[in-house]
Amino acid sequence: MMIVMQEGATDEQVARIVERIEAAGARAHVSRGEFVTVIGAIGDDRELIASMALEGEAGVERVVPILKPFKLVSREFRREDVVVEVGGRRIGGGSFGLIAGPCTVETRGQTLVTAHAVKDAGASLLRGGAYKPRTSPYTFQGLGRPALDILAEAREETGLPIVTELMDVRQLDEVLEVADVIQLGARNMQNFDLLREVGRADRPVLLKRGVSSTIEEWLLSAEYIAKEGNDQVILCERGIRTFETATRSTLDISAVPVAKGLSSLPVIVDPSHAAGRPDLVLPLARAGLAAGADGLMVEVHPAPNEARSDGAQAVSPTEFARIARAAIALAELDGREVALPEGLRERASVAAEARS
Amino acid sequence: MMIVMQEGATDEQVARIVERIEAAGARAHVSRGEFVTVIGAIGDDRELIASMALEGEAGVERVVPILKPFKLVSREFRREDVVVEVGGRRIGGGSFGLIAGPCTVETRGQTLVTAHAVKDAGASLLRGGAYKPRTSPYTFQGLGRPALDILAEAREETGLPIVTELMDVRQLDEVLEVADVIQLGARNMQNFDLLREVGRADRPVLLKRGVSSTIEEWLLSAEYIAKEGNDQVILCERGIRTFETATRSTLDISAVPVAKGLSSLPVIVDPSHAAGRPDLVLPLARAGLAAGADGLMVEVHPAPNEARSDGAQAVSPTEFARIARAAIALAELDGREVALPEGLRERASVAAEARS
Amino acid sequence: MMIVMQEGATDEQVARIVERIEAAGARAHVSRGEFVTVIGAIGDDRELIASMALEGEAGVERVVPILKPFKLVSREFRREDVVVEVGGRRIGGGSFGLIAGPCTVETRGQTLVTAHAVKDAGASLLRGGAYKPRTSPYTFQGLGRPALDILAEAREETGLPIVTELMDVRQLDEVLEVADVIQLGARNMQNFDLLREVGRADRPVLLKRGVSSTIEEWLLSAEYIAKEGNDQVILCERGIRTFETATRSTLDISAVPVAKGLSSLPVIVDPSHAAGRPDLVLPLARAGLAAGADGLMVEVHPAPNEARSDGAQAVSPTEFARIARAAIALAELDGREVALPEGLRERASVAAEARS
Amino acid sequence: MMIVMQEGATDEQVARIVERIEAAGARAHVSRGEFVTVIGAIGDDRELIASMALEGEAGVERVVPILKPFKLVSREFRREDVVVEVGGRRIGGGSFGLIAGPCTVETRGQTLVTAHAVKDAGASLLRGGAYKPRTSPYTFQGLGRPALDILAEAREETGLPIVTELMDVRQLDEVLEVADVIQLGARNMQNFDLLREVGRADRPVLLKRGVSSTIEEWLLSAEYIAKEGNDQVILCERGIRTFETATRSTLDISAVPVAKGLSSLPVIVDPSHAAGRPDLVLPLARAGLAAGADGLMVEVHPAPNEARSDGAQAVSPTEFARIARAAIALAELDGREVALPEGLRERASVAAEARS
Repeated sequence: MMIVMQEGATDEQVARIVERIEAAGARAHVSRGEFVTVIGAIGDDRELIASMALEGEAGVERVVPILKPFKLVSREFRREDVVVEVGGRRIGGGSFGLIAGPCTVETRGQTLVTAHAVKDAGASLLRGGAYKPRTSPYTFQGLGRPALDILAEAREETGLPIVTELMDVRQLDEVLEVADVIQLGARNMQNFDLLREVGRADRPVLLKRGVSSTIEEWLLSAEYIAKEGNDQVILCERGIRTFETATRSTLDISAVPVAKGLSSLPVIVDPSHAAGRPDLVLPLARAGLAAGADGLMVEVHPAPNEARSDGAQAVSPTEFARIARAAIALAELDGREVALPEGLRERASVAAEARS
Repeated sequence: MMIVMQEGATDEQVARIVERIEAAGARAHVSRGEFVTVIGAIGDDRELIASMALEGEAGVERVVPILKPFKLVSREFRREDVVVEVGGRRIGGGSFGLIAGPCTVETRGQTLVTAHAVKDAGASLLRGGAYKPRTSPYTFQGLGRPALDILAEAREETGLPIVTELMDVRQLDEVLEVADVIQLGARNMQNFDLLREVGRADRPVLLKRGVSSTIEEWLLSAEYIAKEGNDQVILCERGIRTFETATRSTLDISAVPVAKGLSSLPVIVDPSHAAGRPDLVLPLARAGLAAGADGLMVEVHPAPNEARSDGAQAVSPTEFARIARAAIALAELDGREVALPEGLRERASVAAEARS
Repeated sequence: MMIVMQEGATDEQVARIVERIEAAGARAHVSRGEFVTVIGAIGDDRELIASMALEGEAGVERVVPILKPFKLVSREFRREDVVVEVGGRRIGGGSFGLIAGPCTVETRGQTLVTAHAVKDAGASLLRGGAYKPRTSPYTFQGLGRPALDILAEAREETGLPIVTELMDVRQLDEVLEVADVIQLGARNMQNFDLLREVGRADRPVLLKRGVSSTIEEWLLSAEYIAKEGNDQVILCERGIRTFETATRSTLDISAVPVAKGLSSLPVIVDPSHAAGRPDLVLPLARAGLAAGADGLMVEVHPAPNEARSDGAQAVSPTEFARIARAAIALAELDGREVALPEGLRERASVAAEARS
Repeated sequence: MMIVMQEGATDEQVARIVERIEAAGARAHVSRGEFVTVIGAIGDDRELIASMALEGEAGVERVVPILKPFKLVSREFRREDVVVEVGGRRIGGGSFGLIAGPCTVETRGQTLVTAHAVKDAGASLLRGGAYKPRTSPYTFQGLGRPALDILAEAREETGLPIVTELMDVRQLDEVLEVADVIQLGARNMQNFDLLREVGRADRPVLLKRGVSSTIEEWLLSAEYIAKEGNDQVILCERGIRTFETATRSTLDISAVPVAKGLSSLPVIVDPSHAAGRPDLVLPLARAGLAAGADGLMVEVHPAPNEARSDGAQAVSPTEFARIARAAIALAELDGREVALPEGLRERASVAAEARS
């Protein structure tokens, strides 16, 4: 790190900082400029900055970290892409995953109908919530345990692996009985005890970005998981909170190439939660893929208007099939592989041919 | 709620909405304007909006809620101020609380020295973290259990009640052994399982506002606690995340009068976390009180530069004494009562006289 | 508009609002709910809300506008897409425009070299700044008048129409001598005198979105221009200001489909200013097109590192050629027409074939 | 400035940067760390960073400026407070200014009534808009020239100096005929031609902070004015744009002590525009003063509900008198001088006595 001294900082103040850096086991390097003095501390920033509080020392203007604060999930640490493989479907490293399903498991019927529909349209994995974080205590909070059984049945029927959310460390065991991928929601991106627990679990984790989290904080949360031994993390951009009110969140499309540059983890996009409007799911899904995302997560409901949660943003199975076709066309333009159930790629190719 | 139809919505579309409102047990009221039709749904919005998803219906432009989404914590539900009383100190209803102490309990010595110092300066309660949420897995995460014992000892020595943070539902019992007030941090404001658990506990809760939470969401989180039976909630404004980088967060000073208008709960201000800089703690503390806050929460460290977490923002005991005197002077200007240890009020008055 | 009364508003307060609405020439419609009373004011919101200040009346909780505040640029007013045609190039209505060139005209040589390079790569229009708004008074502010002559020469040599920025009403005449499209920068999106002046000019306007402007405010600024008689407005999304610091601005990709839904005007994307980093220009350009944008505006510099302004984000001619090819491939996937100089489409098709 | 190289940057890349720094007339200082190399460029950042674009060079991770980008308005350049004196009223340096009046001059009657009322309550200056920037072209845009005559008459009658807004360089001469202080609105904070023009005028300037401008950008805009020779600039914090919708803007109360630390210019607060609600003007005005502001700017209307612009946030003369008394009490607590018309201080003291 570099310590920028205030204009007029005294020699004693500079000496005090040098002394503290050396006491911490690092080397100090003083550079006197025309107006200000800068001290370089040569050592590992992740530990140095954590253990010192140099901003508070007399004469210090500010402290500038040099090294990135995360390591295990960084592109420098691991050059090649992490590929998460779930039930034979690969996400990352050129392979593209299409996760779809209801926001919340409401009934057995709704879930099975949706599961079959999204499978037919080309989904690689089925999503569905058993436990739902809800802003208001007066709204539907999910079916809980029974929903997990319904999801297991849907997997058995369709063969689609299951992505479902974990909200509370006490539910880890029952979620692990069913989930092929554990989802951590945006509100839990900095629930550090939960991060540590899933870091010890033997299951891929889908980590949503918090609505007010920087990309760096997101990667630090992934680092919590990786530090416990689990490097099977899928990052999911789902929109950040800004002043704009036309959409529920602002999809930070730049986060896709930025996160993929900083980290080797796969990055997917959730256009449904970002927009909060079904008519924007298709254009945002296309934008996500064009920006380089390794997959999509889309909310689908057989009768969106009757959904018990977030229905306003779910798309119908028909609209999802359109989104899936658009996704496949874009992936093919880039020479990317899409994990597709048998027969679907053929149908997609035929459709592409017919169009041209 | 009101449902605004799109320009050109058909009679069938209007009829469909009316039918759905009536099916939900509410009354519908159609108002045809020159350009658009608006349908009023007369009933309880909290349930109606939760259970329907009218935005998704054909012909609907948008849905406008009329009633506030929270009830138990609202000023309409309970006109008079909620007063939280802890060990004889009152916060709210004209009484002012001064919570001070270290960000994190690091050692027995640091904690006891700080406890005595803040008590002497006028603090009503002692704060100190045993478990610390930290953005990076490489930084100090708190001493855990041993820190709780140190806090208990500090209470015994000084008589100051203890405010300490709960991060994980599994630690609830041990935190309850020591905490006089349970703190929920900004990152856990929407950890709904945690909210429900503290709602069932027999202890006041200090609920920090999330850095990207609206005031309405903050009150909905308080509603989660109240709904479980615990109405002893202190709201704490600690800054929101904005584009400005000169301060760590932007203290939303307007949130104080706004929250006090919407809710009967006491509202305090945390100038330390908002600013992230010790030189701003005094002006922001004064601003908070002038805006009507019922108290302050200030980080104090005997040697701020050596603090193991957030040292950069802690103030020294001497600076805290200055802040306390400023707070007392402002409270007196407004005729508010400050819970002060014996002798301190006298000293404060003498100081005021000397100044004038 | 609808006026939502406070719980407990009196009959007198309701009567007062009704009276004021009727005095303003509109009709009032009172709807009494279980908890609150809502009054509908039936008339033109754009005038009603402007001329009354009902939020200030006793008993009023809030005022909810029903009609959109803009008219001439709205999709309701004009269903079919506005197509802006400049020197035979069409932008909007299925046609796609590729605007490229230096941020600032620095020298004759740099401008001519860039103009030829972007033309060869497929650009439809040439951009270049003569007058530059700069945050600091100590940075290069543009060459002014001589830059306009250089742009005119570049047009003569390449045949590319010119897009250049107008900052000051006093420079309108000289800018009109050269500009085929007048650009209004993000900082001037709400410079209302400038909006009115270009509204009276006989030239298309490229209106950048302000970094903290909502989509609604952006369309209201376009309405200022249209109200003076000029409906040849191209909207340009260039990123909004958020808490994220990894990119200079956050490209609001959702703004593309949202603005195109609300308005008939063409919408283009500026990936260079949004990102502030050359490595993000390609993925953001692709994302913009995939989201439905009618064009791109890209900064190109023959030696980006030596640019006198914003060099850090300009791409080289070689990288621009890659971006243009990617844009053409995406446009073709969607069956959109790209205005291309002779011979280029052929080359693009050959490249596409070679790739497959 | 410091140039942080990427991990693995080559010796050639480092040498290239050193060469460019030296070619720019500065000295380079290379510091090789365990992981990364940092190059210090010793010289004047304001020019260096402006003239180079090192972020674009191969091997460069990022560029960190060391010096502040503004100079003339900085506290380092001028240690003592700038005091702006207008018609015998002082703002800054311990003196406190109370600017009040209508948002917009609507009629002669409304303006004169308000002028007398605010004078009686203790205002030091009268504000009133002749030209109004309005988001929508359909709302009242000010009376223009005739409003300036009304303001001149109000000054003659009350003796209060006039603060009025300049929107367009072409109106400078007529505004200078009447204005004692020229106001630049938030939307024009980065209208650089306007900044330069008022920098050449012989009149104090009240510079509002843009709703999405950082404190640093605000001071750079003040630097534009100072660079032309006018150092009589009053900074006015009026709220920034954030995700919170309970208030129109979020008053950035920290900006008061931060700007006063970085700059010697006086800083005032506009609680009316920040809040957009009359009930918040008093608490925010108090907060502003408690945070150290050198003054307030408050909108007052004799019949707020009938105001033609922004009426929803104006306070009545009675409420303004309450705000003025609260301001005077706070200023006295801090030993600050308030410029008061004769007789008022006496009345304020009597009131204070009566209260105690």
